[in-house]
Amino acid sequence: MRPLVLPFLFVISITVTTSSHPHPLDPLSAAEITAVRAAVLSSPLVPARPLHFHYVGLDEPDKSEIISYAYGTTTSSSVLPRRAFVIARAGGESHELLVDITDKTSPSVISHAIHHGPGFPRITAEDEVAAMALPHTYPPFADSVRRRGLNLKYPPFIESLRRRGLNISDVGCGVISRGWFGSGEPSYGGARVAKMQCFIYVVGETPNFYARPLEGITFVVDLDRVAIIGYKDRVVEPVPKADGTDYRSDKVGPPFTGPVAAPGVVVQPEGRGLHIDGHLVRWANWEFHLGFDMRSATVISLASVFDADAGIRRRVLYRGFVSEIFVPYMDPEEEWYFRTFMDAGENGLGVSASSLQHGTDCPANAVYFDGYYADTDGKPVMAPDVICLFERYAGDIAWRHTENAITEVRPDVTLVVRTVVTDGNYDYILDWEFKTSGSIKCVVSLTGILEMKATSYTNVDQIKEDVHGTLLAENTIGVYHDHFITYHLDLDIDGTKNSFIKNTMVSVRNTGNPATGGAATARRSYWTVHREVVETEAEGQVNLNDAPADLLFVNPSKRTHVGNLVGYRLVPAVATATSLLADDDFPQRRASYTKKQVWVTPYNKSEKWASGLYTEEGTGDDNLAAWSKRNRRIKDEDIVLWYTVGLHHLPYQEDFPVMPAVSGGFELRPANFFERNPLIRTKPPGHGYSNCSCSIRSE
Amino acid sequence: MRPLVLPFLFVISITVTTSSHPHPLDPLSAAEITAVRAAVLSSPLVPARPLHFHYVGLDEPDKSEIISYAYGTTTSSSVLPRRAFVIARAGGESHELLVDITDKTSPSVISHAIHHGPGFPRITAEDEVAAMALPHTYPPFADSVRRRGLNLKYPPFIESLRRRGLNISDVGCGVISRGWFGSGEPSYGGARVAKMQCFIYVVGETPNFYARPLEGITFVVDLDRVAIIGYKDRVVEPVPKADGTDYRSDKVGPPFTGPVAAPGVVVQPEGRGLHIDGHLVRWANWEFHLGFDMRSATVISLASVFDADAGIRRRVLYRGFVSEIFVPYMDPEEEWYFRTFMDAGENGLGVSASSLQHGTDCPANAVYFDGYYADTDGKPVMAPDVICLFERYAGDIAWRHTENAITEVRPDVTLVVRTVVTDGNYDYILDWEFKTSGSIKCVVSLTGILEMKATSYTNVDQIKEDVHGTLLAENTIGVYHDHFITYHLDLDIDGTKNSFIKNTMVSVRNTGNPATGGAATARRSYWTVHREVVETEAEGQVNLNDAPADLLFVNPSKRTHVGNLVGYRLVPAVATATSLLADDDFPQRRASYTKKQVWVTPYNKSEKWASGLYTEEGTGDDNLAAWSKRNRRIKDEDIVLWYTVGLHHLPYQEDFPVMPAVSGGFELRPANFFERNPLIRTKPPGHGYSNCSCSIRSE
Repeated sequence: MRPLVLPFLFVISITVTTSSHPHPLDPLSAAEITAVRAAVLSSPLVPARPLHFHYVGLDEPDKSEIISYAYGTTTSSSVLPRRAFVIARAGGESHELLVDITDKTSPSVISHAIHHGPGFPRITAEDEVAAMALPHTYPPFADSVRRRGLNLKYPPFIESLRRRGLNISDVGCGVISRGWFGSGEPSYGGARVAKMQCFIYVVGETPNFYARPLEGITFVVDLDRVAIIGYKDRVVEPVPKADGTDYRSDKVGPPFTGPVAAPGVVVQPEGRGLHIDGHLVRWANWEFHLGFDMRSATVISLASVFDADAGIRRRVLYRGFVSEIFVPYMDPEEEWYFRTFMDAGENGLGVSASSLQHGTDCPANAVYFDGYYADTDGKPVMAPDVICLFERYAGDIAWRHTENAITEVRPDVTLVVRTVVTDGNYDYILDWEFKTSGSIKCVVSLTGILEMKATSYTNVDQIKEDVHGTLLAENTIGVYHDHFITYHLDLDIDGTKNSFIKNTMVSVRNTGNPATGGAATARRSYWTVHREVVETEAEGQVNLNDAPADLLFVNPSKRTHVGNLVGYRLVPAVATATSLLADDDFPQRRASYTKKQVWVTPYNKSEKWASGLYTEEGTGDDNLAAWSKRNRRIKDEDIVLWYTVGLHHLPYQEDFPVMPAVSGGFELRPANFFERNPLIRTKPPGHGYSNCSCSIRSE
Repeated sequence: MRPLVLPFLFVISITVTTSSHPHPLDPLSAAEITAVRAAVLSSPLVPARPLHFHYVGLDEPDKSEIISYAYGTTTSSSVLPRRAFVIARAGGESHELLVDITDKTSPSVISHAIHHGPGFPRITAEDEVAAMALPHTYPPFADSVRRRGLNLKYPPFIESLRRRGLNISDVGCGVISRGWFGSGEPSYGGARVAKMQCFIYVVGETPNFYARPLEGITFVVDLDRVAIIGYKDRVVEPVPKADGTDYRSDKVGPPFTGPVAAPGVVVQPEGRGLHIDGHLVRWANWEFHLGFDMRSATVISLASVFDADAGIRRRVLYRGFVSEIFVPYMDPEEEWYFRTFMDAGENGLGVSASSLQHGTDCPANAVYFDGYYADTDGKPVMAPDVICLFERYAGDIAWRHTENAITEVRPDVTLVVRTVVTDGNYDYILDWEFKTSGSIKCVVSLTGILEMKATSYTNVDQIKEDVHGTLLAENTIGVYHDHFITYHLDLDIDGTKNSFIKNTMVSVRNTGNPATGGAATARRSYWTVHREVVETEAEGQVNLNDAPADLLFVNPSKRTHVGNLVGYRLVPAVATATSLLADDDFPQRRASYTKKQVWVTPYNKSEKWASGLYTEEGTGDDNLAAWSKRNRRIKDEDIVLWYTVGLHHLPYQEDFPVMPAVSGGFELRPANFFERNPLIRTKPPGHGYSNCSCSIRSE
């Protein structure tokens, strides 16, 4: 669900100074985005107008070139070409363009293609603004609103609004992607089509319009033509009163009756331990490149860790980013069945990234990065403070032991890279956490506002049938749904060619025979490890809930001193739900990869988006599961791990009106990567700090 | 595995000032322990000597009395009786005594019984010290050591020790509980029996003797008689060199080559938000009693949360503690098959609690509690700083939302109650985390040292059979094992009588028929919730890996405004492993409850210990699964949740020589407990703090 009013966009001037030699993975600068726009608009290859930019992003050099650049013994002084990939809509078609911007003063389109398959590029903010204006001049909708305004079933609230001058402008409608439902639904001649649904939205009242749905009304709109092509007012339900749903601090108090903890600030007496050079970040034993993309938001590249025992920097992760967030709702009803969102592909996580609030979204010791992307007109937009980095002092312990009254402890300090994607009602806090132990932890915390359905029920005692959700407040149902957050993780453990190993724990009966691992003791059973080096993609799909296993990514050409293959292992945290939709259901066909948390594919530059390049109204023919049907070899190859964090969300009243964060995630943990715990030779904290103090800065 | 040398015990004088009116749940004070000892030693009921105290703890008043005391409208001024429960060994028998210490000047034994069933109370530190002296005067062991010292298979290390004067005093042997293996093993006439195994332990060298096992030798000792009753030198394996296994900071550097993060300190400009009155803790919206016990270590009682919307304090958790930690190893070999530790019952978590290091085990803003327990002679021992409490500023977000360029964020600050139990080689960091959202989170982080097995192998290429572990270094195997940490959680949601509800998510085919929850749309499937109010204990056993479900504990007599039953739900985090041992295997019979993570029982004052009261050499006849066989009713009763955090531990080289912490846990999260998110009316951070600084205090 997208916001009804767009966030304020910072359209900046194009005179941004950038280094003449950016890192080849640096995201497009404002100047580069401007150059891309100029090249596309002056190209004879796409003469149709209007031309709308739906995606503009870096088309990075081949991986081998990047690897040479980053890790080559002789760093080439020649600059790799800079190129952008563009998807634009013009003349009712989706155009793919590669633009060379190595010389920003003479950018040129170097290739052009038209997409002929199913699906469309993301719905833009400008698509939404245009569509949102349509209902206000649509007579049947005025009738629907009037019909509700006079309905005696819920006079108090609507009447009070009417007396204060409620009119159709107090109702806002938001664009909702329509998903794909095969031949059971009209194709509208192949037009780019979305739905719209509406909310009471009184200026100056709660921004939480999600709590006041105008249930029962659905628009169908042609996004390219900006026209209503369908309208249904199916059923009238009361508009929830939405008492107490305004969460703004100037509305909930004073008095502020909620619990308050004492204020606390992290102080770094010797300053930050963080070193930033353009988009390269160095911290403790880690080094990585920090990028940003319209579709995926934050991109971590070239993450490597320094091995002090070996005296060398070692490769871990070539590329990591959130590839898709699939959010299907579980109500088959007319106004809800199609709500099967794919936030990255349909809207873009980068363009939905929130500007982080200093001191609350990120602690006082954070540093911030801006993001740049293109608007529909192709002009650069600066999104301020969309990424923060901070050293996390959570009171955790890295390792400890007490023996003979001697205690050694090393506290755990980590580096967090945070982005918050607010795609309409939901806020996804996406953390990459780098640990000195060599681990990379990904944590996604969900907060924001539930999608709510209006109902006539005011008490659960009245409910006899399945209402597909929880009664959160009078006339308000929080609808059951899932969240599947899929990460693209191109691991390069000590090099490009890796293998995937499934170490499954299996129960064994003690045979008493040493030849089979048994022994002549009274012990009857134990578990051991069945080791499977995975050969092909089909064997690489894993449902973690099937059997206990350690999943390893190893470099088959590199061993530790005692002969173990060097590797990293995937440690899932909470949130290992898989999709419960039927395989033949349309949303499931689009997100068919959500029945396994783990997929492993051979690296392919074009396989970035788990839901396919053209996700919007896409059919799943270009998704992760579709690619994997080729069942390519993944043993001793350049392989990519796709991991899906999954949560079934059965709403509770505490999730109303804004949800307390709930988290899921996973960890990539060194597994025979180091010869031993890399933190053994870490100096213990050498100084205590006393007389710590702060002065109050009023805000 | 217990330490070879005991931690320094602080035996304190008995003139500790205590309040004359302690809270009825306060742990026994030093003065009370002294009174208990006096009463027992002067009682004619147990004349046999020597008499050894194995357990001395509070025998709390009945729950109804505690509830009246804590929540009664008229707080009675009369003091509830103070009583202690004692298990002592004398005359080869286990004696149970109840001692009244209401008047500490004239304590009296009010009941006495002799335990006749299987099993024994915990092995005491004094048991271990006595047993550890035995091998040094045992000629066959001297032969074994000499035989190894001359063995040419591993000359460099042993030779170097020999030249430096290695003799039998450089070998230490530690007591290892022998488990229970039925009639397949000698009963030794019902004696209290343990095994011992040995390590090279050179004074002044590494404290990490675990890395230098003297493999192949097993003693059998009679703990009451303090006598060797069996000895086997089965096989000679090289003693691992154990290079680089000394983890002490003064040995690993300088230079300290490990990664270092910048120092950071949490500063609370307005002071701590924590209020401590004796053993009662108040913080933000939480209040609870903090206890300590020889067996369970930290005990949380009477946890209640203030509901600001309702204006009342509401009950959540009557009692929570770690009931047992079961750690079975997966090597059936002679020296390993019996290693199936039950740390709480066999050794005691409280007596194994480490003194927490200020600034590293807990951050600078922590406060500390001491613990008191009885030594074998019954005298009080003060264990300093065994619990710390600190407010955690981890940079997390409690809730947020961005809408129309308006962002509201509330940072998450929590209260952590931490204990570290070091039971020999392993360190368990046991955190209770209280959240202002109403959640209670339990996190257990495992660190410390692996149990290692000596082997002749120096490279994995040499290994052809199942060695039941990972080759971590030359001649060193980290043996496969599990950790099952079982929590006793007596939830009292808004009152004593609660019910347990399984909300299972089930796939449903869209029938198109509204009567069955379907709708005439193109959607083919969805999930809904099958709600099962559990009637009896048998139905209350849940394996979380079977089906996706929300598990709820509700008060069936209390509903929210819209009619939902008020409740809390169990949210498992990572670590939901269940035991893979065969049901008929002896260790599994003792820990038969570890095949399900979730058990629910009716409250019974005597059912505290999941492995039974007499765990040591116990048979499982008194464990959680045995009690539950009665299949009592648990609907609308006073019920207890037993939750087991489970981890299969397949060691990796990074776990050597000390393991980086790995975590598991769960959360008890309000579920229709509050009418809405209790943090909506929480004031946002009002001030920024600037010019934060600290002065360096050299240490």
